Amino acid sequence: MLPPEWASPVAWVISIALIVVVALIIRALLNRLIDRVIRRAADGVMPERLRFRAATPMDGAAAVLTERRRQRAETLGSVLSSLVTAVVFGTAGLMVLGRFGLDLAPILTSVGILGIAVGFGAQELVKDFIAGMFMLVEDQYGVGDLIDTGVAAGTVEAVTLRITRLRDVDGRVWYVRNGTINRVGNESQGWSRALVDVPVAYESDVTAVREILKKISSDIWEDPEFRDVALVEEPQVYGLEQISAAAVIFRITVKTVPTHQAEVARELRVRVKAELDHAGIPLASV
Amino acid sequence: MLPPEWASPVAWVISIALIVVVALIIRALLNRLIDRVIRRAADGVMPERLRFRAATPMDGAAAVLTERRRQRAETLGSVLSSLVTAVVFGTAGLMVLGRFGLDLAPILTSVGILGIAVGFGAQELVKDFIAGMFMLVEDQYGVGDLIDTGVAAGTVEAVTLRITRLRDVDGRVWYVRNGTINRVGNESQGWSRALVDVPVAYESDVTAVREILKKISSDIWEDPEFRDVALVEEPQVYGLEQISAAAVIFRITVKTVPTHQAEVARELRVRVKAELDHAGIPLASV
Amino acid sequence: MLPPEWASPVAWVISIALIVVVALIIRALLNRLIDRVIRRAADGVMPERLRFRAATPMDGAAAVLTERRRQRAETLGSVLSSLVTAVVFGTAGLMVLGRFGLDLAPILTSVGILGIAVGFGAQELVKDFIAGMFMLVEDQYGVGDLIDTGVAAGTVEAVTLRITRLRDVDGRVWYVRNGTINRVGNESQGWSRALVDVPVAYESDVTAVREILKKISSDIWEDPEFRDVALVEEPQVYGLEQISAAAVIFRITVKTVPTHQAEVARELRVRVKAELDHAGIPLASV
Amino acid sequence: MLPPEWASPVAWVISIALIVVVALIIRALLNRLIDRVIRRAADGVMPERLRFRAATPMDGAAAVLTERRRQRAETLGSVLSSLVTAVVFGTAGLMVLGRFGLDLAPILTSVGILGIAVGFGAQELVKDFIAGMFMLVEDQYGVGDLIDTGVAAGTVEAVTLRITRLRDVDGRVWYVRNGTINRVGNESQGWSRALVDVPVAYESDVTAVREILKKISSDIWEDPEFRDVALVEEPQVYGLEQISAAAVIFRITVKTVPTHQAEVARELRVRVKAELDHAGIPLASV
Amino acid sequence: MLPPEWASPVAWVISIALIVVVALIIRALLNRLIDRVIRRAADGVMPERLRFRAATPMDGAAAVLTERRRQRAETLGSVLSSLVTAVVFGTAGLMVLGRFGLDLAPILTSVGILGIAVGFGAQELVKDFIAGMFMLVEDQYGVGDLIDTGVAAGTVEAVTLRITRLRDVDGRVWYVRNGTINRVGNESQGWSRALVDVPVAYESDVTAVREILKKISSDIWEDPEFRDVALVEEPQVYGLEQISAAAVIFRITVKTVPTHQAEVARELRVRVKAELDHAGIPLASV
Amino acid sequence: MLPPEWASPVAWVISIALIVVVALIIRALLNRLIDRVIRRAADGVMPERLRFRAATPMDGAAAVLTERRRQRAETLGSVLSSLVTAVVFGTAGLMVLGRFGLDLAPILTSVGILGIAVGFGAQELVKDFIAGMFMLVEDQYGVGDLIDTGVAAGTVEAVTLRITRLRDVDGRVWYVRNGTINRVGNESQGWSRALVDVPVAYESDVTAVREILKKISSDIWEDPEFRDVALVEEPQVYGLEQISAAAVIFRITVKTVPTHQAEVARELRVRVKAELDHAGIPLASV
Amino acid sequence: MLPPEWASPVAWVISIALIVVVALIIRALLNRLIDRVIRRAADGVMPERLRFRAATPMDGAAAVLTERRRQRAETLGSVLSSLVTAVVFGTAGLMVLGRFGLDLAPILTSVGILGIAVGFGAQELVKDFIAGMFMLVEDQYGVGDLIDTGVAAGTVEAVTLRITRLRDVDGRVWYVRNGTINRVGNESQGWSRALVDVPVAYESDVTAVREILKKISSDIWEDPEFRDVALVEEPQVYGLEQISAAAVIFRITVKTVPTHQAEVARELRVRVKAELDHAGIPLASV
Repeated sequence: MLPPEWASPVAWVISIALIVVVALIIRALLNRLIDRVIRRAADGVMPERLRFRAATPMDGAAAVLTERRRQRAETLGSVLSSLVTAVVFGTAGLMVLGRFGLDLAPILTSVGILGIAVGFGAQELVKDFIAGMFMLVEDQYGVGDLIDTGVAAGTVEAVTLRITRLRDVDGRVWYVRNGTINRVGNESQGWSRALVDVPVAYESDVTAVREILKKISSDIWEDPEFRDVALVEEPQVYGLEQISAAAVIFRITVKTVPTHQAEVARELRVRVKAELDHAGIPLASV
Repeated sequence: MLPPEWASPVAWVISIALIVVVALIIRALLNRLIDRVIRRAADGVMPERLRFRAATPMDGAAAVLTERRRQRAETLGSVLSSLVTAVVFGTAGLMVLGRFGLDLAPILTSVGILGIAVGFGAQELVKDFIAGMFMLVEDQYGVGDLIDTGVAAGTVEAVTLRITRLRDVDGRVWYVRNGTINRVGNESQGWSRALVDVPVAYESDVTAVREILKKISSDIWEDPEFRDVALVEEPQVYGLEQISAAAVIFRITVKTVPTHQAEVARELRVRVKAELDHAGIPLASV
Repeated sequence: MLPPEWASPVAWVISIALIVVVALIIRALLNRLIDRVIRRAADGVMPERLRFRAATPMDGAAAVLTERRRQRAETLGSVLSSLVTAVVFGTAGLMVLGRFGLDLAPILTSVGILGIAVGFGAQELVKDFIAGMFMLVEDQYGVGDLIDTGVAAGTVEAVTLRITRLRDVDGRVWYVRNGTINRVGNESQGWSRALVDVPVAYESDVTAVREILKKISSDIWEDPEFRDVALVEEPQVYGLEQISAAAVIFRITVKTVPTHQAEVARELRVRVKAELDHAGIPLASV
Repeated sequence: MLPPEWASPVAWVISIALIVVVALIIRALLNRLIDRVIRRAADGVMPERLRFRAATPMDGAAAVLTERRRQRAETLGSVLSSLVTAVVFGTAGLMVLGRFGLDLAPILTSVGILGIAVGFGAQELVKDFIAGMFMLVEDQYGVGDLIDTGVAAGTVEAVTLRITRLRDVDGRVWYVRNGTINRVGNESQGWSRALVDVPVAYESDVTAVREILKKISSDIWEDPEFRDVALVEEPQVYGLEQISAAAVIFRITVKTVPTHQAEVARELRVRVKAELDHAGIPLASV
Repeated sequence: MLPPEWASPVAWVISIALIVVVALIIRALLNRLIDRVIRRAADGVMPERLRFRAATPMDGAAAVLTERRRQRAETLGSVLSSLVTAVVFGTAGLMVLGRFGLDLAPILTSVGILGIAVGFGAQELVKDFIAGMFMLVEDQYGVGDLIDTGVAAGTVEAVTLRITRLRDVDGRVWYVRNGTINRVGNESQGWSRALVDVPVAYESDVTAVREILKKISSDIWEDPEFRDVALVEEPQVYGLEQISAAAVIFRITVKTVPTHQAEVARELRVRVKAELDHAGIPLASV
Repeated sequence: MLPPEWASPVAWVISIALIVVVALIIRALLNRLIDRVIRRAADGVMPERLRFRAATPMDGAAAVLTERRRQRAETLGSVLSSLVTAVVFGTAGLMVLGRFGLDLAPILTSVGILGIAVGFGAQELVKDFIAGMFMLVEDQYGVGDLIDTGVAAGTVEAVTLRITRLRDVDGRVWYVRNGTINRVGNESQGWSRALVDVPVAYESDVTAVREILKKISSDIWEDPEFRDVALVEEPQVYGLEQISAAAVIFRITVKTVPTHQAEVARELRVRVKAELDHAGIPLASV
Repeated sequence: MLPPEWASPVAWVISIALIVVVALIIRALLNRLIDRVIRRAADGVMPERLRFRAATPMDGAAAVLTERRRQRAETLGSVLSSLVTAVVFGTAGLMVLGRFGLDLAPILTSVGILGIAVGFGAQELVKDFIAGMFMLVEDQYGVGDLIDTGVAAGTVEAVTLRITRLRDVDGRVWYVRNGTINRVGNESQGWSRALVDVPVAYESDVTAVREILKKISSDIWEDPEFRDVALVEEPQVYGLEQISAAAVIFRITVKTVPTHQAEVARELRVRVKAELDHAGIPLASV
């Protein structure tokens, strides 16, 4: 095919120029598109169906959230932009080479075989990146959140598109590939709930126990030290979760500020023990 | 191939125009088709074999359901519409480029290799979206329902085509990929059932215990506080679920309004304990 | 290729007409084929190797079964018919477009890439539909049957080609994808069997216990209330399923009408307790 | 290519005729091949390396086996024959169409894409059929056999190329896909073995116990009621399977007629209890 | 292409003859190659890195082994030979057809689509055959060996390229697909080892117990009944495998002739019980 | 195609030279690119989103870290460089061969089939290498770190791109393929935390116990032997982690220098036992 | 294409000769490359990042290691060499056949379809071989080592590229496919560690027990019988691994010569029992 083009060099030059120009235009258009989506994400105007973060950010965390969102948007944007550039310029380069009369089959074959060979092994990598991108866009968790990824649980120390780094309660640092996280639980959004089970002996006076537990609940709700810092609503007392000859089980539940549930539960246990000791009601050994 | 077309420019222009016109027509037809299916879904006239929501929506929830269905239909419609536009215009663009005499092989190869490479990794993403679409169409659950997805259980806070967001009983927020949900249990449809097992000592008088339990059942069914709010039918007493030297087990079962079964079970336990104490019948320790 | 056809327009018109006519004929033939298979399924004349429903349908259920089979056959037929129409008309459309001299490569490439990309993710969907079709053809279960799918068990409320909807004993509604059901157990076909184990103390008189249990068995078989409603054959007593210093275990087994086994087992336990109390033979605590 | 053939119509007609004739010949040859293999299978002359059924069929079961084998052979033959016909005629049809000058690419593309799309999802279906075919050829189990498929165990009620239908001991009907059965255990071939463990107190006289158990073994072997109906060889007594301060364990093992092992074990336990009670040797509680 | 060949019929006939001759030669060469490998396998001259059967075959088993190896070699050879014939003649047939001027695309497409469709489902079948071939070549187990395949354990009754048939200790017959056996344990090669743990009370005299156990060991080693039939080396006594307030554990280990370990362990337990009773040393209850 | 090129040998020579020159340039460019990324990694200037190593390296470990990073960067660089060379030269070689008029289809086919055949099996290998590369780049762990890979845990002895070699606490050496490590926990980064649960009897004086534990905490924090070597912050005492009739559980938590948590916990237990013995407060048996 | 070549027979002969010569050269080059890598492996000069065998081979094992490495290198080399020969000669043969004017499409298609069909099933085989090659190159284990492969553990008796043969402690021979070994633990490299837990009663004198254990540790370290044969460093005593009302647990750890840890632990237990008996300190029953 070489001779015909060399025979009409004008059409040949025009076609090459056309390729380059179209490639530049397409890349610019795609980058602008990415840019706009990114900026909307940074401004927090992502369409509602993809944005469902807890509505009431605590104390001034809004600014932190906005900053975090902006950084993430940029990370995401630069990755997508690199991808677009590679594809568009790669295609244009191949087309220009073809215009020079070179046979492209060997290149395409080499790259294709390598691509497939690596592609089989790399699918987990692609899976990780896709998972990471959606995690960012959906803002599932951020640095400082306390999460449970199934294979490891702890406080998020860093997130990248490929992995999430946690530190668990023993101080162990976990590197978890995003693609292996099928579901993630976040304890730092909205509120937490503390559950305290109180097993009393079967012979106990059910009504009296219920009254004592209700009193403890309203006391802690009145206590400014807890109400202001850790509680979201007044504790509830549920009665007779289970009965047997061995024990009768009551349950206190209370909504708390995120991650404060253990603290509240401990205080409730201290008060329950004190009050029941005072009233002379024995616990069951369960 | 360039010269022949330039030689007969009329046929060339006509063929390009034909491509554009056909593309517009096809896109319009497909969009209209999608629109009609969507509108029928919004009006609740989907064919019966795909619609099997509980027939008796509780208190005025009908309007909520209709609104929810309309929003979902629109979400679904816009996604399908974007997909159709991308495929039709992409094809038409390639054909027009081909009419200009450019060799399409490099473009197709680049896009193809990238497509396959990403496709391997993205199959889970596609799986999520397909699962999400069917979940929407089949209306398996909605915001506010109490569901069990296998990997996490709780109240639905948000649903997208890719993930479902739950909040479990401890206040933890779960993000679950739709494609990982092989089966889902919904506790908020139709009715729930409370089961209360009552283990009494082997020596107890079986007939007497059965009478007491039957009386409790009819009492709670007569009690307007429960009958109107939480019960769907009178509790049933089943006898001798198990016998051994240690215990004889009776069972009370009762259909309740969805998600009220724990409340009803607690009340039943309180009444069983009171009545058995009154009759001097001891429980078995199981 | 355009000019040659335009040069001989007669052959060109003929070839297009041929395509359309052949497509219509093929579609009609395939639809008729589907129709015939469907009608035979509806009439219950499917070949025996695919039909092995319980031979003795209970009380007048035959009409219900026939109606159910007819509805299913139609569901199946309309799906297959749509599939045939799509393939035949799609092919014919492509061929006609090709006759107009348009280059089909871009269309095929776009659709092909999209098809493969979606195909990877959609294989589970196809799997669900195939599983659903065979479930229908083989009539493995229907609305109202009590089944165990492995991931959830309960009463079938609805079946589609993609999913099966169950309601379990707690009133929870389960949506199970047909393709995830590797084996399904149906408790509503033919008969069920109740097993009641009776552990007596090692020191007990084995012969006496066996006689008592046999008497209970023949009593319940004579009792018209049970024999007519729930029993299929007289209960059997098996002796010494296990021996140790702690207990000697007897077993009563009885074939019952489907899903009545729990009711029969309860009645057997009540009678066993009464008779053994009367005879002064203590149970072992196992 | 149309004109040249029309130009030499003789060669054209000949080539079409050749296609049809060759297709008919190939189909006939393949059918005959299938037929011969089938007939040999029906006559029980399959090569020995694929046939290893229990050598000693019980009471007159040989005729049943032969009949069963013949039915299966026909099932298998008709499926293979349909497959051969579809492939040969499909190919010939495409070639004839090609001879008429129609462009086959669109047909092949449509069918190919559909085929791949469905193929991904249908691989489990193919797997089921292949597993079913080998199960038939190898005669692994038949209607009436008691088998354990791993996911369900019970008596076989029906077998098709795709699924096996069982009924378990509770009367539940199981539909198991053949492809999910990695290994199958058949209790109805050749013989079964009953194991009865006898734990006696550590202080017992080991020699005396062994003698008693040996006497029980020879007694039951002499008992015509058992020897003729259920036993294959005399029971063996193995001594001191385990020792500890709590117990010394003896074991009786006996080969029985298939599926009679539970019955024999029960009788052994009755006799062991009677003899040990008589000798005043206590069992250990294990 | 048809006309040119018909124009030079000599070259055409030569090319066809060439195809047939080359096909025959290639097939003959490959068969001879297979034959030579097979014969070397039958003669036991397989390269050492693939042959590691136990070096000391027991009593005259060598002849059995050789016969078994020869049969297997033939099985393997006939399968490979069929495969070679199919590929070589299939290819030659296609080439000859092509020489007759027929368009091969439709055949290749039909066969290709079917091949891929079936191939997806048949990969497990191929896996089974490959596993079976290597099992034969490596002589991992044979009829009569006692093996553990992970999914089932028992005595091998038959082996084919696709499945292995076992009979377990309860007389159940297992059909196991070769491809599902990731690792296999063979108890019939070389030697087995019996382990007997002897827990004595913490207060026991450690040295005295050790002496008693050592005496038992040398006694059984001297006993011709065991030494000649079942033992490979003198039993070893290991001391204090575990200590706690409850017990001190000794262990006797002994290498035995394959599959005789249970018999030796039973005899050891009988002797240990007798000697410890005699010495008045109580066992611990563990 | 051979003749035309030989006809214009100048264009032919130019095209070959062009291929070689372009190949050299591309390889040089890619190597330089790799080199720059590597050098930045060695200098520790990797972009922040991929670098999140603990900020405070202990005693002079900074130099060790830098050296380790440099070695890794070189390993990574040489592998990438080899890969680039193979692809670029392979492509260029194929193109030059093509310029000589040789038909490339056979080579490409042979290599392609082999590539796909091996590719299926080699995907795990590629997965291992990709995992290894990211592990290096992200510096997840290094020689001497104490890690938990899920399948094995211990001290890292060596890392390659394919496997990681650990030595566990029993001295066993583990070779773990990098691609099988979905998440890895590193105990040697930043800090560790020791948890010591102290169960005291239910009747104990809660306030007194809490005071004793607090005193122990401040004592150990004041103790220079521990504060300087092992502690990061003062131990915390949490109260009433659980209450029942059996025990009341307190918990001491303390951040320690990495991998010193067991040592600190042992010392805390020694002091707790001494102090509680001294105060006469009994532990609960839990 | 046949005629043109026959027209210029000189160019035709040259091109065939060129093919053969190039094939021979390429094969020679690749074999030399393989040879060099192999020889370096045999000489132990593999690059350090792939060689991390224990640095201190015990008693004269160096020669054994070298011999073993040489044999392995040859095994590896002959396999790679066969592979290279097959690919190079296969390609050259195809090219020569093509030069003779034969149409290669049928051959390529037959072989390709067969290759893909088998390839799907053979991927596990390829996986095994790849795993075996890396196991050899990395020298993970050898004949005589005591390893844990996850699915089976024991002493290595033989290794091939496809499987590893072990003999476990009961004398059972295990054949394990190399590709199923995700991680392998080798107990025969460098050193092992024995752990002995000593639970003493809560009331014991902690300081006294620690002194006794330390004395035992230094005694055994001074004992030439153990120090020279089995110990690598002096045993360490760790205190208070756990405390509760039931027991206080001490731990002795000691590095031993590989596989001698059980022997050392037994001796430690004997001495601990003797010393504690002597001091009158009771063990806890834990």
